[in-house]
Amino acid sequence: MAFLFNEQDPDRIAAFEAAFADLPVALKHIDAAYDPNEIRYVFTWQPLEDWSRFPNLEVVFSVSAGVDQLKGLPDHIALIKMVDPHNTQSVVDYVLTACLAITRGFPIYAEQQKRKVWEQHPNVPLAQTQVAILGLGDIGTQTALTLATVGFQVSGWSRNPRDITGVKSVSGNKGYLSLLPDADIVVCLLPLTPETRDLLSASFFAQMKQGAALVQAGRGAHCVSEDLGAALNSGQIGAAVLDVFDTEPLPDASAIWDYPNCLVTPHVAGRTDTKTAVSNVVENLMRHIQGQDLLWQVDRQKGY
Amino acid sequence: MAFLFNEQDPDRIAAFEAAFADLPVALKHIDAAYDPNEIRYVFTWQPLEDWSRFPNLEVVFSVSAGVDQLKGLPDHIALIKMVDPHNTQSVVDYVLTACLAITRGFPIYAEQQKRKVWEQHPNVPLAQTQVAILGLGDIGTQTALTLATVGFQVSGWSRNPRDITGVKSVSGNKGYLSLLPDADIVVCLLPLTPETRDLLSASFFAQMKQGAALVQAGRGAHCVSEDLGAALNSGQIGAAVLDVFDTEPLPDASAIWDYPNCLVTPHVAGRTDTKTAVSNVVENLMRHIQGQDLLWQVDRQKGY
Repeated sequence: MAFLFNEQDPDRIAAFEAAFADLPVALKHIDAAYDPNEIRYVFTWQPLEDWSRFPNLEVVFSVSAGVDQLKGLPDHIALIKMVDPHNTQSVVDYVLTACLAITRGFPIYAEQQKRKVWEQHPNVPLAQTQVAILGLGDIGTQTALTLATVGFQVSGWSRNPRDITGVKSVSGNKGYLSLLPDADIVVCLLPLTPETRDLLSASFFAQMKQGAALVQAGRGAHCVSEDLGAALNSGQIGAAVLDVFDTEPLPDASAIWDYPNCLVTPHVAGRTDTKTAVSNVVENLMRHIQGQDLLWQVDRQKGY
Repeated sequence: MAFLFNEQDPDRIAAFEAAFADLPVALKHIDAAYDPNEIRYVFTWQPLEDWSRFPNLEVVFSVSAGVDQLKGLPDHIALIKMVDPHNTQSVVDYVLTACLAITRGFPIYAEQQKRKVWEQHPNVPLAQTQVAILGLGDIGTQTALTLATVGFQVSGWSRNPRDITGVKSVSGNKGYLSLLPDADIVVCLLPLTPETRDLLSASFFAQMKQGAALVQAGRGAHCVSEDLGAALNSGQIGAAVLDVFDTEPLPDASAIWDYPNCLVTPHVAGRTDTKTAVSNVVENLMRHIQGQDLLWQVDRQKGY
């Protein structure tokens, strides 16, 4: 009975090795020798090349909160997402930073700086700035609460109804449409599903207030990047802060690097804390061995 | 008895004209005809060319909180600074935005974006980020409290001792020196005086932690910009957000536009609210006419 570990970070390897010293499960690194038949568990961010190599695989632990990248996993294998309060706080702080930066014109002033342009734009108070958050899971809910506390007007959309103090929440398939005309900033924190893929497209941007901004901390495939580029160039979108991309690292040849009024960050909004990752995995391993229900299991039908 | 108004903003002109309709003082715009002998009051941001033209001038109202630009005013004329809660909040929000942007690497990622570099840097939690605020007047104190509330570690320096909950405050002539080795971000919110002019110089930067950042929302003359450029180029200063400059607008030929890891904003941290400006001026005018003490009077010896 073995646990296949597919990560290269030396600190993470050391932390998992230390934890597994006391467990009745052998830890095997993916680059070392192991027998595929003994693998019952896998810890990975990206999918393995061929899941059928592991006939006794029962549980896959995702390194990240989002699990869309593992959608090719056979349905009979349990998939566990990472729930990490440190990671949640890191994403919340990132979105807060991006919304404040947009409200105070930082992306536009950075663009002006390139052309040595000194032009002041009005300071809009936070209380007059409406932020619409797409996705009100754990991270989206915490983000909404933090933005409201700091003084933003906050609304949000999720598939199922949510009740969050101080936040105007809507739900349903196309519920987000009612938020777009009033939002000064739209924040994407959605899971990637067939329904949310390519959501941020030309028709979506056309329904936003002219000159409103986008914060993209969901998944690259949520956004049709050519459409975003066109909307930034026309001024329909006034500014953007992007952390996720279809292809990462973003290739040299990508036009996104040069989009106007657009800040590119290299997928740094969230990062799973090693201690939390170890303790979540160990807890679920013990539950599995003892025949208890697993925590944080992904609904394979919904995809998150 | 007349009040000389030296501002060009049409909204401000209209608001002051409306308020003066009921006052026993005539409002004269600087571009219209008036008799210098009848001027008892002046409302201005920049100094007038020759104060001796106004033999009956008694009170000058500054449009801004900082009054260093009016230091040539003869000592017998009362100088009133602008105290505006909207302006204070605007500066507080700006500094919060700048500190968060620095903590999440935005200036560095913007620099990388220019060169199409995808390189992740560690996310340091706010609770492990020490911000040192130079200047703990009204704006500095509110900034310190807000940064502490959001989760930063906050310290501050002022000439006279201050006691601010949750903020490590030091005072005295060179008190700031004790804060520099531990600060991840230094924020300048000082008044400009002979003691604070050129404070942000090579010797100051050399005492900061290597790679720490600067937020400059004081006055341009606080900073020796060539020294800052050298410190940014050497990496001694890791990032900077600058809102004020020796010459504004910043000239095309200025090297500051191209400093690395440095965001230039065009003096937008604060802006005096028109309604507040009108009500502050009217209140003090009435006090002066009725022989009462003036509010918000500058100590001409200290310079603020």
